[in-house]
Amino acid sequence: MPQQRRAQATRRAITVAAAEEFDRVGYDATPLNAILRRAGATKGAFYFHFASKEALAAALVRFQRRIWARLWRGWKQRELDPLLTVVGAVNAALRIVERDVVIRAGTALACRASSYDPGSSEVQEWERQITELLRQSADVGSLRAGVDPNAAARAVQAAVVGVGRLGGQDGGPGPSERAREVWEVLLVGIASSEWLGSNSRSWWS
Amino acid sequence: MPQQRRAQATRRAITVAAAEEFDRVGYDATPLNAILRRAGATKGAFYFHFASKEALAAALVRFQRRIWARLWRGWKQRELDPLLTVVGAVNAALRIVERDVVIRAGTALACRASSYDPGSSEVQEWERQITELLRQSADVGSLRAGVDPNAAARAVQAAVVGVGRLGGQDGGPGPSERAREVWEVLLVGIASSEWLGSNSRSWWS
Repeated sequence: MPQQRRAQATRRAITVAAAEEFDRVGYDATPLNAILRRAGATKGAFYFHFASKEALAAALVRFQRRIWARLWRGWKQRELDPLLTVVGAVNAALRIVERDVVIRAGTALACRASSYDPGSSEVQEWERQITELLRQSADVGSLRAGVDPNAAARAVQAAVVGVGRLGGQDGGPGPSERAREVWEVLLVGIASSEWLGSNSRSWWS
Repeated sequence: MPQQRRAQATRRAITVAAAEEFDRVGYDATPLNAILRRAGATKGAFYFHFASKEALAAALVRFQRRIWARLWRGWKQRELDPLLTVVGAVNAALRIVERDVVIRAGTALACRASSYDPGSSEVQEWERQITELLRQSADVGSLRAGVDPNAAARAVQAAVVGVGRLGGQDGGPGPSERAREVWEVLLVGIASSEWLGSNSRSWWS
């Protein structure tokens, strides 16, 4: 294949190998050599694409940020009911995290207090998105009386983070299955009975 | 002070210093030297007490396990309503995690898939405790009709993990405050209206 495509393939192989190692043992415990071995790449090839392991991590963080921004944009453009939008976007995100090691590793890097990219806080961005949609849900009467949309957003956020962290561990249910169980509880806690009545189970498809 | 007490003080200083470093930058990113510097201890003193950094981590894991076992035992011995027991034990645990860096670091070590101590799964043990109490709650009619206690336990567990992980991050609310918000949502989702009516706010004290 032409040189440029070969270089892209190598960059991709290194990126996936790094994500797999970070996902398996953590960023700090992954030596550069383990990435090279898994990618079948030379040190020269690595440094052609990335200045350092840190630079590779920063690239993973940027990539996941683009993916999540696109995901929220896409779900909001559908102009569904705002509460259904939260549920749909979160479920879609969990399926992506379950399936795609590059995004999973990038998100894990973005969610730890990060020296690669101190400006980013993926956690804050998700809370901002969820809060905005739950405020809209309150405006259209989809929340139970007495539910503070900001507090509810933080509760949803905590549950999502927990699901992402626990899913699949110990051979238990994976993130998608856990998410269904968590929504069953959360939605009864935050949604109005009208919303629950007219959206029964439509939030899980 | 007598030699034995001095040795105990040194061991304690090393343990706290290690916990603080693990808490700040993570276990893998903590070199032994950083622990020694923070503890003001020599390498000789370290190796008198611990065979390795791994052995120190294993001691932190054993310590947190004893603490959590005692916490669950203590809350169950009170023979409160089982759902109140879950809420009380979880809140107490979050306050301990917020306050005590040694237990926080040990719990973080125990919760990652662990090479120090593959037999332990703190996550499974918590799920087992919560599930047992939610089954009892179902038996005494404290759960909403249709709530599966096993699924509800996993939802509670996910939220607790998320609260522990998010609390305090980004200058947002700490674990205790976040926990209150999360229980507001979770309890409406899982408890019967009778339970909610007669325990209104008594679960948060």
